[in-house]
Amino acid sequence: MIDDASGLSFSEQEFLEDFHHTAVYGATDHQGIDRQAGTVPHGQVRDWFQRRAEKAGLVVETDDVGNIFATKEYRSDAPFILIGSHLDSQPLGGRFDGTYGVIAALHAVIAVDQAVARGDLAAVYNIAVVDWFNEEGARFSPSVMGSSVWAGLLDKREVLETEDAEGISVAQALESTGRRGQSRVDLPAAAYAEIHIEQGRRLEDSGHDIGLVEENWSAQKLRVRVQGEQSHAGSLLADRRDALLAASEVVLLAEQAAQGFSADQLITSVARLDVRPNSPSVIASDVELILDIRAAAPSDVEQAREKLLGEFRELETRRNVRIEVDDFILRPARSFTKAGVELAEAAAYAEGLRPMRLATLIGHDSVALNTVVPTVMLFIPSRNGVSHCEREYSSDEHMVNGVRVLARIAADLVEGAF
Amino acid sequence: MIDDASGLSFSEQEFLEDFHHTAVYGATDHQGIDRQAGTVPHGQVRDWFQRRAEKAGLVVETDDVGNIFATKEYRSDAPFILIGSHLDSQPLGGRFDGTYGVIAALHAVIAVDQAVARGDLAAVYNIAVVDWFNEEGARFSPSVMGSSVWAGLLDKREVLETEDAEGISVAQALESTGRRGQSRVDLPAAAYAEIHIEQGRRLEDSGHDIGLVEENWSAQKLRVRVQGEQSHAGSLLADRRDALLAASEVVLLAEQAAQGFSADQLITSVARLDVRPNSPSVIASDVELILDIRAAAPSDVEQAREKLLGEFRELETRRNVRIEVDDFILRPARSFTKAGVELAEAAAYAEGLRPMRLATLIGHDSVALNTVVPTVMLFIPSRNGVSHCEREYSSDEHMVNGVRVLARIAADLVEGAF
Repeated sequence: MIDDASGLSFSEQEFLEDFHHTAVYGATDHQGIDRQAGTVPHGQVRDWFQRRAEKAGLVVETDDVGNIFATKEYRSDAPFILIGSHLDSQPLGGRFDGTYGVIAALHAVIAVDQAVARGDLAAVYNIAVVDWFNEEGARFSPSVMGSSVWAGLLDKREVLETEDAEGISVAQALESTGRRGQSRVDLPAAAYAEIHIEQGRRLEDSGHDIGLVEENWSAQKLRVRVQGEQSHAGSLLADRRDALLAASEVVLLAEQAAQGFSADQLITSVARLDVRPNSPSVIASDVELILDIRAAAPSDVEQAREKLLGEFRELETRRNVRIEVDDFILRPARSFTKAGVELAEAAAYAEGLRPMRLATLIGHDSVALNTVVPTVMLFIPSRNGVSHCEREYSSDEHMVNGVRVLARIAADLVEGAF
Repeated sequence: MIDDASGLSFSEQEFLEDFHHTAVYGATDHQGIDRQAGTVPHGQVRDWFQRRAEKAGLVVETDDVGNIFATKEYRSDAPFILIGSHLDSQPLGGRFDGTYGVIAALHAVIAVDQAVARGDLAAVYNIAVVDWFNEEGARFSPSVMGSSVWAGLLDKREVLETEDAEGISVAQALESTGRRGQSRVDLPAAAYAEIHIEQGRRLEDSGHDIGLVEENWSAQKLRVRVQGEQSHAGSLLADRRDALLAASEVVLLAEQAAQGFSADQLITSVARLDVRPNSPSVIASDVELILDIRAAAPSDVEQAREKLLGEFRELETRRNVRIEVDDFILRPARSFTKAGVELAEAAAYAEGLRPMRLATLIGHDSVALNTVVPTVMLFIPSRNGVSHCEREYSSDEHMVNGVRVLARIAADLVEGAF
């Protein structure tokens, strides 16, 4: 139990027990989890979360795109402070990404609620823990799905009709896990806060305890379709129009495009690539891949994109293939509220921690929320920066520190800091 | 009807009607077929083939790995001359590959049988048309499956347990199409003959009408597994161990390895490549690909393979990944019987055609048969050399010429030429 002048207290042990318990849902062989959106283990952890939140006296509702809200109302006429993250994971993903943020939010809200009950906090706003649906986007694309619908960035109907590789829709997956609500849960929001593992090594490398996110990088995704011609693997090389050879050059060109920038300026990746017909004895006719460009400055994204498009034209001619490029999911660079960064900074110092201001290179539910409501985003250190894999790790100490800071911020927000 | 001193006659029109009729089974939108082994359309064309062969007075039996034999017995104590090919196709494949050889064999056998009936031919051996199961290997790997079991090159039980991507076994696919026989159809074979489209442009480019295969190239397949580490697509490039970047270099290295040789000396390809986890926001941890090396001289295959393995070692260090290589399906270079080439050459000249001796770069049922029985292999021209795609094409004239030559060879073999 901590208890200080803030009037906030929470049980570190209960938080840690809850957090580590979640890893049993979708547990993998090497300390990770596989809990893709709308699967059985995802449904199980969400059911557990509902029971745990109800035990803490919160009222749980699920909206029509599967977002779960665990609410505590103090004033029926007041908006809500939302605090949350997501319980879904990548395939063979880590057990911290997202889940830490939901369990931290739950315990921060419990701490605030107990302080309100004791009369140590005067609540101006209501409060809620949110578990957003499908942040990862591994099974159903795009990522950051539930929070983007909530923020009006994605169309609800299109999202519900989105299918996974087996042709199962989001609507069906929600129904099968008992998480298809009837309508939007209408919680007017005054502010949003989220805490997450960094998924990078800036905090660890520089010896800081907590990250305060000032902005998100610009992110551009290019769907690149290379069309050649199907032929026999026994045909002469000169007769082929091999889509996989051209696509392999695209993958390497994407890497080269990033090498023209510094590491903290722009990054690229190709992580998804599908070959057709993908038979060992048939030269590939089509390859489709997703090329990802992220940078702090939109002009850098644009510069890398233009360079790549020029190189694709040369490649088309040289290899006698066609390369079509569609841009999709453009996430513009955006600042988080300065008042929120300062609030978080003060909370970190009050807990005796060393905060660091930084940008997020990665999409989060907070990035969607930040387009419609003042948002505070925090990071805790992530060992070696590894993430989206079973080796992902953050220490109990860093996690507990994060809950302390988040609870302070939650308390300030409930008291009307914004 | 042709009718000459050979005593052989066959109806060009009936042959062409039968051949073109087969294209309705699994017809695709652009004049091709999709008739993968053990699928419904493959079952349909095989049922049609059985009815057609029975109408011609042949006795049809299916063996326990789905090979179909349509036989005519003249002497109960004598072995058989087998003539055949395959009715399965690649996905979105051509309608000539394999099917031409089966229908040509049927009409060659009909011509021989009529000549025997008329007393123009004295049969020393019996004769059979064979439709080998799963030559293509697109759905069930490896390719050249049914004929390899027959030749003792593959284990029957393993083959029957082989599963497709959906987990359906060969045994199940054979049962579902009514083509799971009870046992091996024991036809002692005196010789095998097959005719096929060239799937290359040597005949067309040089203006020859028919190809006489003297040898098959050596073929080596390498299963290359690149292991990196899963991480977030928002991680810094320097922190990644990206399996897809390394695999892209492998694909391009395979092409470069072939460029050190002349086009008629060695070819390479990578046509199958699978990325894991293949999520747009997760750097690939694993890529598995099949690298194919083919050459006339085994020493050239070995030289290219050694060069590649050295380059993989450099790549492992430079990109901090692990690259494992397994060799599988080694098809050694092998000569076809000289007597068979000469027999075929005489038949071609007798038909007024211009034959060309050449090698096959590609695996065929005849390559498996050639390991256990004297085998004659013929090619007809293939327009632009394109194959394993809907655009595959051979003219009626070339097809009819091929049946004439094949019928002469069949007659010679039945009369005991070997």
